[in-house]
Amino acid sequence: MPRRYEFGRADEAIHPDSMRATIAELVSTFIFVFAGEGSVLALDKLYKETGPPASGLVMIALAHALALFAAVAASINVSGGHVNPAVTFGCLVGGRISVVRAIYYWIAQLLGSIVASLLLRLVTNGMRPVGFYVTSGVGEVHGLILEIVLTFGLVYVVYATAIDPKRGSIGIMAPLAIGLIVGANILVGGPFDGAAMNPARAFGPSLVGWRWKNHWIYWLGPFLGGGLAAIIYEYMVIPTEPPAIHTHHQPLAPEDY
Amino acid sequence: MPRRYEFGRADEAIHPDSMRATIAELVSTFIFVFAGEGSVLALDKLYKETGPPASGLVMIALAHALALFAAVAASINVSGGHVNPAVTFGCLVGGRISVVRAIYYWIAQLLGSIVASLLLRLVTNGMRPVGFYVTSGVGEVHGLILEIVLTFGLVYVVYATAIDPKRGSIGIMAPLAIGLIVGANILVGGPFDGAAMNPARAFGPSLVGWRWKNHWIYWLGPFLGGGLAAIIYEYMVIPTEPPAIHTHHQPLAPEDY
Amino acid sequence: MPRRYEFGRADEAIHPDSMRATIAELVSTFIFVFAGEGSVLALDKLYKETGPPASGLVMIALAHALALFAAVAASINVSGGHVNPAVTFGCLVGGRISVVRAIYYWIAQLLGSIVASLLLRLVTNGMRPVGFYVTSGVGEVHGLILEIVLTFGLVYVVYATAIDPKRGSIGIMAPLAIGLIVGANILVGGPFDGAAMNPARAFGPSLVGWRWKNHWIYWLGPFLGGGLAAIIYEYMVIPTEPPAIHTHHQPLAPEDY
Amino acid sequence: MPRRYEFGRADEAIHPDSMRATIAELVSTFIFVFAGEGSVLALDKLYKETGPPASGLVMIALAHALALFAAVAASINVSGGHVNPAVTFGCLVGGRISVVRAIYYWIAQLLGSIVASLLLRLVTNGMRPVGFYVTSGVGEVHGLILEIVLTFGLVYVVYATAIDPKRGSIGIMAPLAIGLIVGANILVGGPFDGAAMNPARAFGPSLVGWRWKNHWIYWLGPFLGGGLAAIIYEYMVIPTEPPAIHTHHQPLAPEDY
Repeated sequence: MPRRYEFGRADEAIHPDSMRATIAELVSTFIFVFAGEGSVLALDKLYKETGPPASGLVMIALAHALALFAAVAASINVSGGHVNPAVTFGCLVGGRISVVRAIYYWIAQLLGSIVASLLLRLVTNGMRPVGFYVTSGVGEVHGLILEIVLTFGLVYVVYATAIDPKRGSIGIMAPLAIGLIVGANILVGGPFDGAAMNPARAFGPSLVGWRWKNHWIYWLGPFLGGGLAAIIYEYMVIPTEPPAIHTHHQPLAPEDY
Repeated sequence: MPRRYEFGRADEAIHPDSMRATIAELVSTFIFVFAGEGSVLALDKLYKETGPPASGLVMIALAHALALFAAVAASINVSGGHVNPAVTFGCLVGGRISVVRAIYYWIAQLLGSIVASLLLRLVTNGMRPVGFYVTSGVGEVHGLILEIVLTFGLVYVVYATAIDPKRGSIGIMAPLAIGLIVGANILVGGPFDGAAMNPARAFGPSLVGWRWKNHWIYWLGPFLGGGLAAIIYEYMVIPTEPPAIHTHHQPLAPEDY
Repeated sequence: MPRRYEFGRADEAIHPDSMRATIAELVSTFIFVFAGEGSVLALDKLYKETGPPASGLVMIALAHALALFAAVAASINVSGGHVNPAVTFGCLVGGRISVVRAIYYWIAQLLGSIVASLLLRLVTNGMRPVGFYVTSGVGEVHGLILEIVLTFGLVYVVYATAIDPKRGSIGIMAPLAIGLIVGANILVGGPFDGAAMNPARAFGPSLVGWRWKNHWIYWLGPFLGGGLAAIIYEYMVIPTEPPAIHTHHQPLAPEDY
Repeated sequence: MPRRYEFGRADEAIHPDSMRATIAELVSTFIFVFAGEGSVLALDKLYKETGPPASGLVMIALAHALALFAAVAASINVSGGHVNPAVTFGCLVGGRISVVRAIYYWIAQLLGSIVASLLLRLVTNGMRPVGFYVTSGVGEVHGLILEIVLTFGLVYVVYATAIDPKRGSIGIMAPLAIGLIVGANILVGGPFDGAAMNPARAFGPSLVGWRWKNHWIYWLGPFLGGGLAAIIYEYMVIPTEPPAIHTHHQPLAPEDY
């Protein structure tokens, strides 16, 4: 039989655990609705423009989601599975990586992206990489805010699934959640600004294809969004140790409801 | 070598564990066939209407499924990963959350949805959120029943994967099952009523886009379906403790076949 | 440093573990190539016919895969997660379920499918369920063999991931592998015979839509394919206890390479 | 509270663990950007040619990804889940499988592929399997390099998720990462050379359809790419035992950031 709760304990309304759970619900619903309703608007945008059809966007979102899952899975036990300078920046803001190591990661991420772009140019018999830019009808400021919001969602998910110290083992949750939120966000942001959420992803093709229009957006936006997510998760969602005065109160564990 | 069963033990035919397993098979096959055959009818509906093509529906279903997986994964260890007022209502009906906490969750879910819709309107340079409505050729009552059935399937899956106390660790099963059943159900219900299954998902875009046609369906349907699933799972599927008189009989564990 | 193997130990060439591993590679490569190359031929078939486009087939395959994952995840700890009379039949052939319980499961599976089909007819304002049939240019015998092969792959995967007693915990592997192989097989068999692999999935829509053309194929094929997979896995792949004479030889564990 | 790092410890800059993590970031970002930017170029290629539309490529990539996941999941605990002669070759190069067993696996993989192709020809009423070839506008050398790069990514992922001895349990990560990176790589390489990454996948259809154009590419490329990945992962990424002189220094564990 399920355990039944009383109408509501007096201390639950103000207990820090209730607040953290409420913030978690707010942010997660935000991430979900932004992607869900956003994909409907993105589909409208696709119809109005003479860009790729919906199936082309699905193809590109899947390629990113599936490959990022595999890339994070392949590196999470060795390097933490960042694969993204904005994630590394979020970890730096949250104090979870040293400056020296962050610089090493950034250099490696940019190098990986450049080598990939060069090889793509080679095997495609010279096709010029495209990179990212803001589409017509969307201003640079809109693109910047969109990158901030999309990367906020991504790095919040990284924090919740790969970094939150409450979890014992990272396992499959982190790479899958990271890969899939990037896929979902591309289905939203793709028709507006390409949805990079990752300066390294943007930099390699820009360099090899020598296209720099709007390029600053794909550095500033992800760093701002990633840093913001790190601050919110570190200071508002990660449980603090309960003060001694509360030890007689057993906080609600996730299994309790 | 596999263990071999006799033709059938007399007590197995009436043992409560057989009954629960049978109900579980019935409901799961229902969920599967509703989505499978439903997607075939939904494709027919897409052809008859001049709506988005199948690839557009796939794109929207994937955006919801992938983002909901990430959103639930990011919150399941902090708040239980509801991200949906109908799930919170089901937990309330089943006695697994206090009223105070449910109200907190509802407020957070609605706020998250509103903020997402406002930011979408901003970054898309003013595109009006669409929300949900019943398509032509479908009555409001049909839409209401459809929301009831789809949300029933969703909350039944939530109960079986995230709440059933038999399970030791929630892990990846719950967020994945929740994200993917929402994706499958959108592939069925999308062409008929949009397949919200979530009042918060419907409310934010309705408010920001100021569209209220059929809006009540997306509150009443999910609450009825979610409450029904909670009642069926709590009282018919969750194993009760075997009465003392049966302790000489070892029930079939799931690993037994 | 990796452990290095000698050129080949004499006993490895005839050790039963090598044989089982070899059979496992053969069947798994068969399953993969059948789906991979099959999807290429299926795409050709789609182009030649005036049926649904590739995006429509993707939509239907995804609806089945995602919903079946959720349905199996929701029932695997209660009933074993069959959701398919052919899987129940395979378990019966392998001696892993009693006859009484199998009959209960079959009744529940058929009931679930009928109720789903009835509700679909209701909420779609009377659309007649379609069910399964062999498409033009494909003979009944071809359809029957296709159902046998596709269901063989499905039930082999069920056996390897959900039933093989070597595994400690079933976890997420079984529902995911089952859902995804059904999705892949629909991408192959869809344009030829619909790819039911499940008599309950076929029966409900046939009854409610009253369409019985080719219906026997969707019972005989899955039962033959499922029974064959059960026999092969039970007697050729599941490790037998090593005889005492071999205890000085430590078999290669999967972690060894 | 998160642990805070000092500006950078002197020894971190040269510690082998930092180097390994940096290499892991480089390769993973390479894999991700190659698939992500590559899918954009592949979509361009689809538009220019009169080949299948994007939805057709998504359909084929999904069929491969879903079936390969199930095939690897079904065999990983019995044979290691290679399902690919190039993976077996990588394991041989890395010293993780004996020559005798590798030969057994190769024979089994080729047999599985041939039987699948024969049955496909039967059930499709004689459709001739297609296999792989380099598309127009792409030279054989480009195709060869593409197969090397794509298979390098695949076998690197196999090594990191299924073979790296640091991991306790393989679980779901390996089959999922393997299936999904193949899906992503097909979305990149499909329009250029079909993206086999697997000689057995290519051989069966070539034999049954009797098409041998460019066939050598699909043997040489995967073996070179797979061998290269094995060497890099074995000797550059897998942690060596820290020498005794460093035991006072506690290396950063993945959970540390």
